[in-house]
Amino acid sequence: MADERWERLSSEKLFESPYFSLRADALRLPDGAVKDPYYVIERKDAVFIFPITKDGEVVLVRQYRPAIERMELCLPAGLVEEGEEPVEAARRELREETGHGGGEWAEVVSLASSPGLKNNWAHVFLAHDVEEFASLEPDEFERIEVVIIPTAELKRLIYSGDIVSSSGVAAIMVCMERLAENSSG
Amino acid sequence: MADERWERLSSEKLFESPYFSLRADALRLPDGAVKDPYYVIERKDAVFIFPITKDGEVVLVRQYRPAIERMELCLPAGLVEEGEEPVEAARRELREETGHGGGEWAEVVSLASSPGLKNNWAHVFLAHDVEEFASLEPDEFERIEVVIIPTAELKRLIYSGDIVSSSGVAAIMVCMERLAENSSG
Repeated sequence: MADERWERLSSEKLFESPYFSLRADALRLPDGAVKDPYYVIERKDAVFIFPITKDGEVVLVRQYRPAIERMELCLPAGLVEEGEEPVEAARRELREETGHGGGEWAEVVSLASSPGLKNNWAHVFLAHDVEEFASLEPDEFERIEVVIIPTAELKRLIYSGDIVSSSGVAAIMVCMERLAENSSG
Repeated sequence: MADERWERLSSEKLFESPYFSLRADALRLPDGAVKDPYYVIERKDAVFIFPITKDGEVVLVRQYRPAIERMELCLPAGLVEEGEEPVEAARRELREETGHGGGEWAEVVSLASSPGLKNNWAHVFLAHDVEEFASLEPDEFERIEVVIIPTAELKRLIYSGDIVSSSGVAAIMVCMERLAENSSG
């Protein structure tokens, strides 16, 4: 199977909001078949931060998620704003959501958030030696609780269903793997 | 912070398709603030299957993803249809996308696909000893290539950016962890 793109014959914007937009494309497949409509949700890229304190604990956030009608415990995360580099967005979100910053940062992996429907990517950062240095600045409708736990508890919280988001779980598991490699290497 | 739900004061369906729908809610937070509109993408639950052959290899699928304009290598996956149990959907998707079936199945974890925007869950199944027993039955616009590789190569394919979906990476990492626990336990 060739690596060819599907050709976009036309594209119509069906809905726009500050959070995402929706378009309907007509696509021609490499074998000539035409898929019309093919819907795509356009959304800004996201950042997920795995922030480790000098004490070796991880800084998480707990908040209500209306789409799934339950609380979610997860890594600090947010969307990359216009003109920001992903690492800038990651440092901003960590500060706004948890009051933490500083430390040594590395981008670990980039994930496609929902490639069957959405066009955006989630950039995952591992931050060592972060410190609390500011007060929280949540967005107007964010109600965030900061939860600091030993990193060794993360996998249990995934298996127990407390940490549920796909991008968050992927980010945690990949960062834990990276930490294990570094400590054994 | 209390575990209270945000009360849905009203809800309007803005868009419907066979693949997802979009609604705008007005929500009252526990502290009385009102968030209006709050957008939610409604989508059927998904299933992701980590299928291991008798030879200890994993069966993957490679397909073009128009939303991210590139090929994606991932676990077999799909949506749960009306009236199906997730495990039935998982067995159907594995058969349709790869021609494989049989074996011993266990549900490992359920993930919220994109809890900041979408309401659906991804149910992850680990299937041991699957065998090829049927021809592929892809959907009309699916162009799927089956890729069978040793499970030990999966992490390299995540780090290299070949396997990119959040749910797929989360599913792979959690299942690999489960396999490591079982083999050491």
